[in-house]
Amino acid sequence: MADRKTRKPDWVIAKERAKKASAAETIWLFGLHAVRDALANPAREKLRLVVTQNALDRLGDHGGLTPEITDARVFDRTVGLPPDSVHQGCALEVRPLSWGNLDEIAIAGAGRPLLVALDRVTDPHNVGAILRSAEVFGARAVIAPARHTAPETGALAKTASGALERQPYLRIGNLADALETLKAAGYVTVGLAGEATESLDMVLDGLGDRPVCLVLGAEGPGLRERTRDTCDHLARIEVAGTFGSLNVSNAAAVALYAAARRFTWA
Amino acid sequence: MADRKTRKPDWVIAKERAKKASAAETIWLFGLHAVRDALANPAREKLRLVVTQNALDRLGDHGGLTPEITDARVFDRTVGLPPDSVHQGCALEVRPLSWGNLDEIAIAGAGRPLLVALDRVTDPHNVGAILRSAEVFGARAVIAPARHTAPETGALAKTASGALERQPYLRIGNLADALETLKAAGYVTVGLAGEATESLDMVLDGLGDRPVCLVLGAEGPGLRERTRDTCDHLARIEVAGTFGSLNVSNAAAVALYAAARRFTWA
Repeated sequence: MADRKTRKPDWVIAKERAKKASAAETIWLFGLHAVRDALANPAREKLRLVVTQNALDRLGDHGGLTPEITDARVFDRTVGLPPDSVHQGCALEVRPLSWGNLDEIAIAGAGRPLLVALDRVTDPHNVGAILRSAEVFGARAVIAPARHTAPETGALAKTASGALERQPYLRIGNLADALETLKAAGYVTVGLAGEATESLDMVLDGLGDRPVCLVLGAEGPGLRERTRDTCDHLARIEVAGTFGSLNVSNAAAVALYAAARRFTWA
Repeated sequence: MADRKTRKPDWVIAKERAKKASAAETIWLFGLHAVRDALANPAREKLRLVVTQNALDRLGDHGGLTPEITDARVFDRTVGLPPDSVHQGCALEVRPLSWGNLDEIAIAGAGRPLLVALDRVTDPHNVGAILRSAEVFGARAVIAPARHTAPETGALAKTASGALERQPYLRIGNLADALETLKAAGYVTVGLAGEATESLDMVLDGLGDRPVCLVLGAEGPGLRERTRDTCDHLARIEVAGTFGSLNVSNAAAVALYAAARRFTWA
């Protein structure tokens, strides 16, 4: 039996293990654009650059990293990307970006006091497109629970088209808790829900230029009950008919546009 | 040498051949949702339903079509879909829908006097998402040149999430000619272009509830010169910074939302 007095409590051990696992976590970014964007980002920790000679010629500056030149025929095996990845013979192993904590970013981050919170949006293409729109409309961050959310992957980076390097994507523990933190910091939380009685325009018109966090759920299940209960408002995007629904990234783009136009444009 | 008097002119032969080829053109729709939507559409000409027994049990009503039950292991070979198609053991061969001519739909079609024109948008996922948003915001149709545009395919149908069966997707010969037709019919044509001096809000505010055709180009090349010259207005979606750009389907959703809110909601 271990000495009870000196042994660390289980929760400390678990926390240390999670931290170690997260530090060990790496991502393969792929495709010329995504790799170039990451190489140009000083905040991005880069580990390995694997390229074909042809890709290296097209890549240009590779940020002092020693490229591992690989034959096109063995590239897939060397890097181990999903089979349909359009990698253009170019992949970069990196660590996930660290964006700091929610309070700091929400209150003093770059951009407008505008956030997007995602409730279990698991599709990397949707999350990538949402990061892209969040950057375009000047949102401070996209936040999402660490679990049941699309992780930072090469596919997400590709859809984000560079935005992953620049737009804070904050993974938090519990979404409802994070929304409470934001409310305490002065944010109005607006959940998007098709069955809401108020329209998004109505809700936003009443908020002037107050900080807003837009909350979107996955297609199908929508917002979870606790998320819904935590939101200050539920709002629907006005639609024309009874058929169809917006894809979640399109709903996010529309909501970001509607929320961003309340601010004075620089 | 053929008898010159009775021989059809070359252009007639070419036209007949194109017509025959188009009549022969079929599409494989796949996935339970897309197949169900197509089976439920009386306007859709259905040819073959290929399913696994399991998919057939889940499909429910199959519209009187005799299902060809196939073993899951040979399904891919039988139907010949792209390798990454999430078909759920269910595919339906159909003919493309015929939506009639542009004049009729633009002037007397269902929905609002609102159209989306696509200038060489070739990605089926983007076109599918745009059809979905067009339906949600009550646009009469999405129009695109027959060439250099994403054709009606299973992948497009899947992204459109049912909208392909309900939302007119009109393939026309020449885009600039079609825009002229629409202008003659009273439409204001508004091209989306990042470098435009007027914002979309400014342009739309000046149009009251006049019929509008939103014109979007592919990411990267944008609108072609003749398309640009034909548009009554060029407008940009207001963005916050200098970095990033919207994905074309997100730009379409934002523009549709902005243009649709001018109309009184039913």
